[in-house]
Amino acid sequence: MTYSTEKLQEEKVFKDPVHRYIHVRDRVIWDLIGTKEFQRLRRIRQLGTTYLTFHGAEHSRFNHSLGVYEIIRRIVDDVFAPRSEWDQSERLVSLCAALLHDLGHGPFSHSFEKVFDFDHEAFTQAIILGDTGVNRVLSRVDESFPQHVSDVIAKTYENKQVISLISSQIDADRMDYLQRDAYFTGVSYGHFDMERILRVLRPREDQVVIKSSGMHAVEDYIMSRYQMYWQVYFHPVTRSSEVILTKVLHRAKELSEENYEFAMEPYHFVSMFKGDVTLQDYLKLDESIVLYYFQMWEEEKDPILSDLCQRFMNRNLFKYVEFDPSKEYKKLNKLEKLFQQAGLNPEYYLVVDSSSDLPYDFYRPGEEEERVPIHLMMPSGELRELSRQSDIVDAISGKRRTDHKLYYPKDCVMNDSTHKEIKAEIRNILGIN
Amino acid sequence: MTYSTEKLQEEKVFKDPVHRYIHVRDRVIWDLIGTKEFQRLRRIRQLGTTYLTFHGAEHSRFNHSLGVYEIIRRIVDDVFAPRSEWDQSERLVSLCAALLHDLGHGPFSHSFEKVFDFDHEAFTQAIILGDTGVNRVLSRVDESFPQHVSDVIAKTYENKQVISLISSQIDADRMDYLQRDAYFTGVSYGHFDMERILRVLRPREDQVVIKSSGMHAVEDYIMSRYQMYWQVYFHPVTRSSEVILTKVLHRAKELSEENYEFAMEPYHFVSMFKGDVTLQDYLKLDESIVLYYFQMWEEEKDPILSDLCQRFMNRNLFKYVEFDPSKEYKKLNKLEKLFQQAGLNPEYYLVVDSSSDLPYDFYRPGEEEERVPIHLMMPSGELRELSRQSDIVDAISGKRRTDHKLYYPKDCVMNDSTHKEIKAEIRNILGIN
Amino acid sequence: MTYSTEKLQEEKVFKDPVHRYIHVRDRVIWDLIGTKEFQRLRRIRQLGTTYLTFHGAEHSRFNHSLGVYEIIRRIVDDVFAPRSEWDQSERLVSLCAALLHDLGHGPFSHSFEKVFDFDHEAFTQAIILGDTGVNRVLSRVDESFPQHVSDVIAKTYENKQVISLISSQIDADRMDYLQRDAYFTGVSYGHFDMERILRVLRPREDQVVIKSSGMHAVEDYIMSRYQMYWQVYFHPVTRSSEVILTKVLHRAKELSEENYEFAMEPYHFVSMFKGDVTLQDYLKLDESIVLYYFQMWEEEKDPILSDLCQRFMNRNLFKYVEFDPSKEYKKLNKLEKLFQQAGLNPEYYLVVDSSSDLPYDFYRPGEEEERVPIHLMMPSGELRELSRQSDIVDAISGKRRTDHKLYYPKDCVMNDSTHKEIKAEIRNILGIN
Amino acid sequence: MTYSTEKLQEEKVFKDPVHRYIHVRDRVIWDLIGTKEFQRLRRIRQLGTTYLTFHGAEHSRFNHSLGVYEIIRRIVDDVFAPRSEWDQSERLVSLCAALLHDLGHGPFSHSFEKVFDFDHEAFTQAIILGDTGVNRVLSRVDESFPQHVSDVIAKTYENKQVISLISSQIDADRMDYLQRDAYFTGVSYGHFDMERILRVLRPREDQVVIKSSGMHAVEDYIMSRYQMYWQVYFHPVTRSSEVILTKVLHRAKELSEENYEFAMEPYHFVSMFKGDVTLQDYLKLDESIVLYYFQMWEEEKDPILSDLCQRFMNRNLFKYVEFDPSKEYKKLNKLEKLFQQAGLNPEYYLVVDSSSDLPYDFYRPGEEEERVPIHLMMPSGELRELSRQSDIVDAISGKRRTDHKLYYPKDCVMNDSTHKEIKAEIRNILGIN
Repeated sequence: MTYSTEKLQEEKVFKDPVHRYIHVRDRVIWDLIGTKEFQRLRRIRQLGTTYLTFHGAEHSRFNHSLGVYEIIRRIVDDVFAPRSEWDQSERLVSLCAALLHDLGHGPFSHSFEKVFDFDHEAFTQAIILGDTGVNRVLSRVDESFPQHVSDVIAKTYENKQVISLISSQIDADRMDYLQRDAYFTGVSYGHFDMERILRVLRPREDQVVIKSSGMHAVEDYIMSRYQMYWQVYFHPVTRSSEVILTKVLHRAKELSEENYEFAMEPYHFVSMFKGDVTLQDYLKLDESIVLYYFQMWEEEKDPILSDLCQRFMNRNLFKYVEFDPSKEYKKLNKLEKLFQQAGLNPEYYLVVDSSSDLPYDFYRPGEEEERVPIHLMMPSGELRELSRQSDIVDAISGKRRTDHKLYYPKDCVMNDSTHKEIKAEIRNILGIN
Repeated sequence: MTYSTEKLQEEKVFKDPVHRYIHVRDRVIWDLIGTKEFQRLRRIRQLGTTYLTFHGAEHSRFNHSLGVYEIIRRIVDDVFAPRSEWDQSERLVSLCAALLHDLGHGPFSHSFEKVFDFDHEAFTQAIILGDTGVNRVLSRVDESFPQHVSDVIAKTYENKQVISLISSQIDADRMDYLQRDAYFTGVSYGHFDMERILRVLRPREDQVVIKSSGMHAVEDYIMSRYQMYWQVYFHPVTRSSEVILTKVLHRAKELSEENYEFAMEPYHFVSMFKGDVTLQDYLKLDESIVLYYFQMWEEEKDPILSDLCQRFMNRNLFKYVEFDPSKEYKKLNKLEKLFQQAGLNPEYYLVVDSSSDLPYDFYRPGEEEERVPIHLMMPSGELRELSRQSDIVDAISGKRRTDHKLYYPKDCVMNDSTHKEIKAEIRNILGIN
Repeated sequence: MTYSTEKLQEEKVFKDPVHRYIHVRDRVIWDLIGTKEFQRLRRIRQLGTTYLTFHGAEHSRFNHSLGVYEIIRRIVDDVFAPRSEWDQSERLVSLCAALLHDLGHGPFSHSFEKVFDFDHEAFTQAIILGDTGVNRVLSRVDESFPQHVSDVIAKTYENKQVISLISSQIDADRMDYLQRDAYFTGVSYGHFDMERILRVLRPREDQVVIKSSGMHAVEDYIMSRYQMYWQVYFHPVTRSSEVILTKVLHRAKELSEENYEFAMEPYHFVSMFKGDVTLQDYLKLDESIVLYYFQMWEEEKDPILSDLCQRFMNRNLFKYVEFDPSKEYKKLNKLEKLFQQAGLNPEYYLVVDSSSDLPYDFYRPGEEEERVPIHLMMPSGELRELSRQSDIVDAISGKRRTDHKLYYPKDCVMNDSTHKEIKAEIRNILGIN
Repeated sequence: MTYSTEKLQEEKVFKDPVHRYIHVRDRVIWDLIGTKEFQRLRRIRQLGTTYLTFHGAEHSRFNHSLGVYEIIRRIVDDVFAPRSEWDQSERLVSLCAALLHDLGHGPFSHSFEKVFDFDHEAFTQAIILGDTGVNRVLSRVDESFPQHVSDVIAKTYENKQVISLISSQIDADRMDYLQRDAYFTGVSYGHFDMERILRVLRPREDQVVIKSSGMHAVEDYIMSRYQMYWQVYFHPVTRSSEVILTKVLHRAKELSEENYEFAMEPYHFVSMFKGDVTLQDYLKLDESIVLYYFQMWEEEKDPILSDLCQRFMNRNLFKYVEFDPSKEYKKLNKLEKLFQQAGLNPEYYLVVDSSSDLPYDFYRPGEEEERVPIHLMMPSGELRELSRQSDIVDAISGKRRTDHKLYYPKDCVMNDSTHKEIKAEIRNILGIN
């Protein structure tokens, strides 16, 4: 028996609230879970700052990664294994890619990626291919194995069925996070009949398709996705905390560039501020580290950094009004000036944030984000693109929905102890009282 | 309208996975939730290190505190309000005590209390009575109000019904945590019909009693409690991580006392090591801070501190064997010597840990832990102690169950690159191979 | 205290799997539940023959009627009670109409209404106004009270808010049955956040509207409804059993009209066959009675009646092929001739069945089925029709979906012991082998 | 491929609310489900008259039989299949016995068995071995196969592992009905971690044992069983409806024996009244038939039969008081006399009913009901009887609990229009007012 096929003496079982149990029999998977880099995912929340809106959303990416692995394991072992169109030798690379697909996420990814130009997928690949515990485990399978796993993440892997399992419009990643995020937030969206979907997935040439008898479960999944985006992921309060977090990082970076002297040297951030982060630096980052600095910075003498950190830590967030960037540009200009006059730096205290989502799309060649469509396999064997068969999906297919909001610190704007008249004008423009 | 009766213009609602919704109409409650001290509970996990065993158990004490508040709110507003035995003026103090009852918990309370002799209830009272945001809110109700809330926590409050709601063998605290911890770990224990229990609670003289028609729901609750204790709270893997965490703190304290020079001064710990923690020091502690230091200490030159921190952070825990302290004392002595010889400091690497629980008990005057029994109110109005009426409860009443385990680093003991023969002997005594 | 406001000494509570508990405090409601006519609903399944497709769907209309009552009770007592736009004196008529709205349903309503031209709403009114236990209870409230309740059912009641609660595109009836039918069938559709919807309902002039903050819960409800219709209510196997049931009734009626001599006189059906059913006759009908006759008729000498009854009782149903009535008329004619030649009476053994649904529609004056639209109440107080605000609802609004199938007894058609060549031709046309 | 190993071309799947899906691949199983005798179970409720207490409990034995089959299928195919101690050739007999184990149940079994001395297990065997559709299917497997299946039901089958799966203190039958009855009644008892239990079952010599790591799940199962018995199965209101049902049957039998002339000849009951029921007679009985007669009998001229039928159909049940048969014998005698004087035949209107349960018991040789104990398999391989290992189970093991109640028609006893003084005395003795 080689390492790649080695089984644990006794199956390991994780109790999971979403999938009930997560089963591990492969030695390789068990060893990967035990690596320092994978354990680090326990210290990174799955939904970033969402816990400030939905207090239950405190679950980590460790959680989610195990879930994606389990879904792939069920597909590969229970549904695909006996089918001739599926190459059984792709099993291990599929399981590993599933488990590791989010490995490169850092703390509060969204904001860090924005401010420091990080790319979590690039980091995932770097961890898989670099000098890490994960790489050492993967290399024991086969010298070229880390590259294979990395290729699946990069979507350049030869076997497109494997890519399709991990990353498509109906992949194990999305199926896990929709259910998991619904479970932990407690919202009633996010439920669909995953067991049914798994049973009707079929490997087929260069993709994974769905038997048409499962169409309604897929419709339900797409509606769940739509609701989760607008009810949870784009919730305006979550976006407010993202705005503040992003502005904290901006401010710290700016201060650093201006050679501001921090009361305590921000070791973990230095290379980020300079834009030359190494893999080792990156792997030290987690949400504990970030929150440690934020607590320190609450007491920094720079009033903006200190104020923003206090807002974030104590959940004293910005409020918002609807904003139409195509029509209200002048209004924004006017507000920026008034904020300046009122002593509120508009760069930090007046922020337009936009969210946008495309619930499902068929393939539109040449467009920016060419999406692989979901194909139904009809009883005749014919493939048919989902929106051609489902009225509901057709109705929302390709319809992008966008939402813009303008965030500002209502408490400051309401406080008339200074700049009374300017603030009255600000309130008037914002339509608040 | 005074502050104590002020209502929010619009009810605030938190989505909660356990109670579905948590409703806040009182201005006082809303203001308490917004305090820095209460928001700090978001950074302290409800179940300490349990997430290393049950990966879903990442929920915070913030979560639980809202849950306890909501349970009390339902009892007080929906069940007790119309009853003459209940003094409606006790409503606010009950809600506040419910919300704040865990306020003094620090990070990984169990281990910190053990090593630094902390008492979280004393801290809860200190925060309520000290110079804090929470105290400022409570004082606006009435000068003596903080003291009242504190007295409920201290169980010295005059109205014993209020104490009974917050702290008894069937209180809102336990009803919330059993359900919440079951939800987040995903175990199938921990369910009982709380809605039924709430409906049959009755204020009665100096206690809260239960209509006898709800007895079976109470039996179920007591069984849930029993199962949660042994399946979750005392899980041997969780205890292993507690052991390591405790040993990290011991080691750091010891090093500090020996004037060891830390690579980075452990500011947050200094006063703890010295035993003169102020309230302000204490409030700065949270789990981010602790994990920050643990990450730092992974690279300390002291091999024990560094090793233990790495074990904790990367979940490389100790294994265990059953241990009977009454009979195996000599064996332990022998092992200690062998560990020493093998270069493993037994103080840190050979640890006996005991867990013990009493699922329910009636009142046994004079005994150490005098427990207030649960009383059923029979249709005749007569009160009857639960275990006299319930066969099942009678069967387990007062029966303490205790479990001892001996923890050690199996990886070291299995590694024969050094001290081969000594380790063989250790393995022999431990009965492992 | 008058009868209309009389409360039970102790609240009665029904354990309900969907709403957890159903609460009854009003003497009038308790008395209505105890009437012979209401208890009869226990013997009529909520979903007719659906249990032959989804074996869990054995729940009765008694179940559902209590559920609708409970929903209205929560709306009226918990949400509307404190609002000035709601007339509290409408409470009792709302509760009674909710409880009784399905009182006139007979066994397997769909088929009986089709064959015997029954109208269950007319029967509901007849029971409420006729010489019945229900009428005696309602009359004790007030001489004109039965008429008021009947008017709500007939949608002619003066207060349109009450009608809107019981019967609109988002009423208590639908909210209960979607959830209840999902629960008993076990399908994963049918879930939506009813608690949220109830909390955002508002009485407003002559309708009940929904606060716009609840829009997404309403979208979810409409999607649930859509999925339940196509996955459960219009399931082709259920339609097959409806087809057979209808044909049994047709055959028995035809035989009766031809003065066929039944082995046992079908007392309960005589007046139905003649078209002069009295209320007393109707109230004797329930599903036990119908199934008793079907068992008897399994042994009738008429081969069609006997065969169809055996098929129904032993679930030996017809199979189906897709059928396009606009294009395949000739094919149907051809098949009818072939069936005749093969000794299969096409009137009973070759049946086109159509299902059609409109998931949601706004008001289209002048159209056949003018639907009252769902209105959202915007924060400004403005009312806006749902599909103008919701992209998803807009996408499916007013889009009727229809499905036609051709049902036939596959076992006969496959059996080549007689008419071998004709059957081969039939199979060829049907596209089966 | 022989019939015994024949697979369906495509797996059939039943949607089940308890086990989510029930999977059928074996042609034999599919054919059995399609028999007239198995379909008859749709017309027999799983919990008899319990729906008059818990309105959701309208589910049939058809439901439950599929559930037991599915549990055995999962054990046999997923857990036992790869183990050498399990003889794979026992698979089909196990599946068939699971599916058919309740086949001989008649309508409202409890009462019918009491009054007519039926034995449903004997009928199950008679159906399996007699001239039935079920027998024809089983005989196709092998001439001796029906006898094998029958032997499993009779517990005389050679392979004791198979018997243990279907019928022991922790068998598939109980695991299904506890969960199913909890689901349909909606009570919160009845939940335990069946998935866990299935995974730790092991075939072992002449029994099925449980790996000790699953002990807590088994404890939970035993507690669930205890709660379901006392909260649901022995609910005093259900017992009241059983009392009335039994008395209806008694009365009808007595009248028949006295040559009373029924308005309509009770064909279905004739052979039962005479005590010479054939299998064919028995198979015609179902709950529709019984309820048909009860409706007829509501109008019989015998006042007792008519009254009792009306009570049953319209749920006008008897009330009860606690009764201690060992001490209150004289009181009962006195009441009987008073009932007689008041014109209430005590044989029908004054009924003592007792319920008794033993939650779990170890083996007590020589005792009436020798129970096969549950054995845990310790890590060492040693078997240990459950109550020796589990404190909780030990606490309730072998402790029989019994409850006696005295049922009577409270409405008659309260009605003072006749026998005013006698009734006052009756009420006085019963302790009601």
